[in-house]
Order: sequence, then structure tokens, then C-alpha cells
Amino acid sequence: MAASSTAIYHATATAPVNIAVIKYWGKASTKLNTPTNSSLSVTLSQEDLRTITTASCSPSFESDALWLNGAVHDVSNARSQACFAELRALRKAKEDRDSSLPPLSTYKLHLISENNFPTAAGLASSAAGFAAFVRAIADLYELDENPTELSRIARQGSGSACRSLFGGFVAWEKGSRDDGYDSVAVQVAPESHWPTIRAAILVISDAKKGVSSTSGMQATVATSTLFPNRANVVVPARMEAMKKAIAERDFETFADLTMADSNSFHAVCLDTIPPIFYMNDASRAAVRVVEEINRCAGKKVAAYTFDAGPNAVIYYDESNQNIVLGALKKGTADVPGWSEKHLDINASLPDGFNETILTALSGNVSRVILTGVGSGPLKVPREQALIDEQGNPRPAQ
Amino acid sequence: MAASSTAIYHATATAPVNIAVIKYWGKASTKLNTPTNSSLSVTLSQEDLRTITTASCSPSFESDALWLNGAVHDVSNARSQACFAELRALRKAKEDRDSSLPPLSTYKLHLISENNFPTAAGLASSAAGFAAFVRAIADLYELDENPTELSRIARQGSGSACRSLFGGFVAWEKGSRDDGYDSVAVQVAPESHWPTIRAAILVISDAKKGVSSTSGMQATVATSTLFPNRANVVVPARMEAMKKAIAERDFETFADLTMADSNSFHAVCLDTIPPIFYMNDASRAAVRVVEEINRCAGKKVAAYTFDAGPNAVIYYDESNQNIVLGALKKGTADVPGWSEKHLDINASLPDGFNETILTALSGNVSRVILTGVGSGPLKVPREQALIDEQGNPRPAQ
Repeated sequence: MAASSTAIYHATATAPVNIAVIKYWGKASTKLNTPTNSSLSVTLSQEDLRTITTASCSPSFESDALWLNGAVHDVSNARSQACFAELRALRKAKEDRDSSLPPLSTYKLHLISENNFPTAAGLASSAAGFAAFVRAIADLYELDENPTELSRIARQGSGSACRSLFGGFVAWEKGSRDDGYDSVAVQVAPESHWPTIRAAILVISDAKKGVSSTSGMQATVATSTLFPNRANVVVPARMEAMKKAIAERDFETFADLTMADSNSFHAVCLDTIPPIFYMNDASRAAVRVVEEINRCAGKKVAAYTFDAGPNAVIYYDESNQNIVLGALKKGTADVPGWSEKHLDINASLPDGFNETILTALSGNVSRVILTGVGSGPLKVPREQALIDEQGNPRPAQ
Repeated sequence: MAASSTAIYHATATAPVNIAVIKYWGKASTKLNTPTNSSLSVTLSQEDLRTITTASCSPSFESDALWLNGAVHDVSNARSQACFAELRALRKAKEDRDSSLPPLSTYKLHLISENNFPTAAGLASSAAGFAAFVRAIADLYELDENPTELSRIARQGSGSACRSLFGGFVAWEKGSRDDGYDSVAVQVAPESHWPTIRAAILVISDAKKGVSSTSGMQATVATSTLFPNRANVVVPARMEAMKKAIAERDFETFADLTMADSNSFHAVCLDTIPPIFYMNDASRAAVRVVEEINRCAGKKVAAYTFDAGPNAVIYYDESNQNIVLGALKKGTADVPGWSEKHLDINASLPDGFNETILTALSGNVSRVILTGVGSGPLKVPREQALIDEQGNPRPAQ
């Protein structure tokens, strides 16, 4: 079948955000985008946080292009180009095996992408973005590769994007090969294994512009004297312990490891020259609130973790929803995000809660996002594609 | 000579504050008060920060007692008792050798102590306090032991106090003996070796009550996975490099090591379970201001360090006074401490200084203390003793 010059091929996929509980920090190779240590994340529900991307190609397109939330974005960077090249090579091999296939690998690509959450809020949008990018093109090209194989490609776009190709609980194994081939994501457990894991994200304002993750982790690898021990000794042990905690649905161990690893990551940031600070006074107030919730509960019912920014992600099990969300709501009742969920949560503190701890949090949280563990990328019906008949972004619905 | 029952013996000494540039954090033995790693400090001028202590004893005193800034303090704690016992044993041995000496070792002690700076400001007052305590009693007892020998005693009162028995640049060698005998302070260089080292202390308000150093460092030793590497590998190398930098009066290396070690110490605090935070947003603003001063100068002209609290101590060489103090004064011109020194410093920023960095500092500094490297403990003339003829604190002058 020969394609007409106006044929437009397209496929649409969504991909989730993931928030690591064992953190990725430090590149073994900047060229291959491989990490110095393995990491492990929880995929969050796409109802609350997802990127949707339509990938299209056509002999009529003149250049590769990407629109994100309506604005044109550059795709000439090495990371995007690496993803394009890898995916086209897989398509080309498929076309070589079956000459009846249209030569999509030779056409320019148009990618149209939208987030259902604020891109600038420091919520791992690049992970969801590159995962949706790769998944949508793979669907467009009708590739047979499985998610782990695609994760090798997504990793080259944005390291932690590889973990967003799966739902549930996902490890990014650092691999040992020089060519990075075995630095891929694997699913540790599907979301159905432990569906009661929930997350409350406190979006905390950041007065200062942070350091980019890429330049930050390069500086840490180059200068932190504590970092090699973290990467080579601390994290490998923690990865195994975390996999076991997830296998056993052991929330207390999951919480201990999650909090310890978040702090370890921010510790090596602080040990960098010059020091990198992502947590601020409000982030630390969130730490204290979680500690106080756990103290009052008499066990670990909540676990904080912080990425390369001040936002707190607080994991908990649904069985402890009332104590965890009750206290968080007491501290942040006026901010957006509580009413949307129609949860029957009273803003209330457990007996003996030291209420002064909440004062440092109040006023410093701009939004709450209540979500939970979720699925990997999803196919979107053709009629919901973000593209119009000319191959341009469709006006927002 | 027999003492009359009303005889009052007394001696008075002052001791300085010291601020470590290689930090002490972690006890090898809580009983012996020995450290997990060696440390190194700069002794600050007693014109600005010192404790004065009159030690007195008399057959008429009924119990050991301590007055600090006019208030009675408990001396029944193990640390104070250990110092009393060691000093009395040395005096007793001296009396045994010379029966003509009055038996001061059998008399109760009254200690009267005053700081010339705010005790509660987190300015290492316990170091100066125990150093003056030990020095004054040693003078009262006319002991022949040298400062390193006395440092072994002061260490048992407050670890970092051992460094306040010397002026200039002082190492506390952790020692290797099981009984702690060789865990003592030694002078690396006298203040005359590098008299141009200055310090600007930014007293930063702390909204939250911090964790005590003792309990904090115990928690770090017990729980931080990064700490052993700091104590066993990072600090030993840094100690040698710092001694060399001081020997060569190499301010840039001194600054690099000082800043790196402060950050390393706060990193292992953050890596503690639960995490310990001493620096706050204002502390981090001070870090940024120092980085910006150095960037504008094109070399390291200032070095920040933070103890177990939010205050910034900023070391610089007098030759760079104008650029360092000019910028700090620009950010904190309205606070007490600038005018007292009668320094001819214009509040001004170097060319290209990013002034927005100062905004996070302004309003968060309550006081500036301008000081420099100084001498060890000093004897005070008898007529300036803090004691009255009955052995009680003299009313404030």
C-alpha cells in the first residue's frame, strides 16, 4: 500500500507520573543517561496526573515538531533526537521485514502533548512526558517491543521516564553493561498487588529558582565525598529491602525506607559543592507533621518523600486515611484540592498532636493533590486524538 | 600552713569561644566524651565572645555551686562532676607531694561565671564555659599541667571545650586509646601565625527549638548510613588538608574545606532518622550571599560555617574586609553590631552582584558580631574576681 502524500497516521497514549521512593540521583554516563544507582518508584494514578500525547507522522510533514500544552517546544535537543532515532530504527527494521507496511520511519513526526496538571509545579512532568512520547510513537509504529524494551528508549529522553512505562511499583535497574543496554525499568509489582497505597502531594511554593536535576546530579557526582557510599553501598541494600517490603505489603518498612532515602538524597545534595538545596522551611515543616502523625499513631502510617524541589509527597495506606488526611487537612484546609475528591475527611488532629507544628506548614502550601498508585500508559481511542485533519494541534476541547 | 575556716581561695580566668572549621559530630564513647572523628577550630577573640569564671574554694563552703550570669546552675550532672573529680585528684596529688600546701582538694568549690554575649544565641557558650571552668580551677589549684593535659579534663565537660584551652588554630585529635587518654586538644598554630583571619557572625533567628547536640549526634551515629564514611574517610583526609592550608595561610583552600565540612556535617544530620535540621531558609540565604561574594571576587574570599543552629559564621582574611563586609552590611545594615566596631565599611555590593540574593537574608538576621582569631584563656587580676568576701557572686559592676 502506497501512502498518499496527505495521509496522516496517528496514535494517542497517556502516561503517568511516578514518584521515587528510592531515588535516582547521579548519572553513570551522561551520553547514555544511565544512573549510578538503581531506583524504585510508585506510579501515580493518571486520573490526577498524566500526560496525553498524540504522535503522528505524514509524508506531508516538513519537520519534527512538538507542542506541549499548546506551545511549540524544541525537539532538536540530543535527548529527543535519541528517542526519535531509536524508535525509527525499530520501525525501519519492521518495515524491512514486511514491505507491505507504509514507510512511517521516513516521515517527520508531530507530537502533541498535554498535561492535566501544572507543568511548572515540579511534579515529574518530564517523566510522564517522555514516557507518553515513547509510548505514543511505539503505538503509531505498531512496535512489538514490550515496556521494558521501550523503557531503554525513554531512559535516553529523561532518566526517570523509563519508570513511567509501567503501573504499580517499578524498579529502574541501573544495569552493568557499558552500552547501557540493561539499564531498564521492570515492574516490581502491579498496582493490583497493593492498590490501597495513596499519596497526598503538598505543592509548596518555592521562592528561589532551583538547580536543574541534570546539572545538580552532575555536580553531586563530581564533588560530594559522601555520594559514592550512597550509590555503591546504601542504595543497593535499600533496593532489596524495598522490594521485599512491597512484596509483603509492609507499610512500616516501606515508610522507613522511603523517608530515609529521601533524606539521603537531599543529604548528598547538601554535600555537593556548591551545596544544592531543594527542601525549604515549609518542606521541613511537612517532615515534622508526618513525624507527629506517626508519633500519635504509634506506628508509621505516613511516609514523606521529596524530589528535586520543595513539594512533599506523602504516601499512606488507605486504611489510615482518616488520621493522615485529617491532620494534613487541618494544616492546609483552605487550599485547592480538598473538595475535588469529595472525600469525607474531617480536618482533625489525633489526640496529643502538637498543633504548633502545623503553623510552619499553614500558608506555605498552594495546592493539595490527592491520588494513589495507578496504571501504566494507556491507549486512547482515535477520536480523542489531539490532532486535527491537517496534522496540527486540535483546539482545546 | 593551716587554713582558717573562713579563708577563701580564688582565681579567675577567661576562656574563648571556638568555631570549628572541621566539625566534631558523633561520640565514640558517651562515657568518656570522646569523638568519632578529629576536629579543628579557630579560637575567636575574647574581646567579643568570652566567658569569665572565678573559681573559689573554702572550708566554709557547704557544697559545690555554680552561678552563670547570676543564676544558680546545677553541678550534679556527670559532666561537671567528672571535671571536679579530675581536677581535685590532680590537686590532691600535688598536696600529697607537698604537705605545706593548703588542702584545697578537700574544700567545696564555688564557681561564678559570666558571658559577655547572649548565652542562648547558639554561640558555643558551653565550650567557653567549660574551658573557663577548668582553667580557673587549675589556676586556683596552682596545677602545673599544660593546656593539652587540661584539655583532657575539659573534654569530659563539653567535647568542644577542649579546643577553647588554646588560642589560634586548634585540633582536637580523637585519639586511639580505649581510655580516651589521648583524645586531647593541640595547638596547630598560634593566633600570631595568621592574625588576619576575621569572622563575621550573623545571628539568625530560629523559630523552632533545635535538637540538642548531644542527642542529635547520638542519633546520627546510630542511624545515618552516610556517617561512617564521613567519620572514617572524609574527615581524616580533610584534617590533614586543613592543617596544611593553615600552615601555608592558604585562604582559598581553608575556605573550600571549611564550607565543604560544614555542609558534610549538616548532610549527615539530614541523613539521621528522624532527620535533624539546624540550617533554615535564612541560613541558606547566607550560603548564597557568600557564594555570590566569592563569585564576584573571582576567588574564595569568604567561607561560611554553621554549627548546631542556624547562625552563619563567615571567615575571611582582613585583606578582603571591604568586599566581604560591604556585602554583608548591605544585607543587614539595620541590625546591631555594625556600629560598635567603628569600622570604616560602606554597605556596598561588588560589580555584578545579584542583589536579589540579599532579600532572603534581610530581616532574618538579628545581630552581627564582628570578631577575629584570638588567644587562649587568660588570667584575670585578683581584684577583678567575680566573688565577694563571703564567697558569693559579687553584684554586677
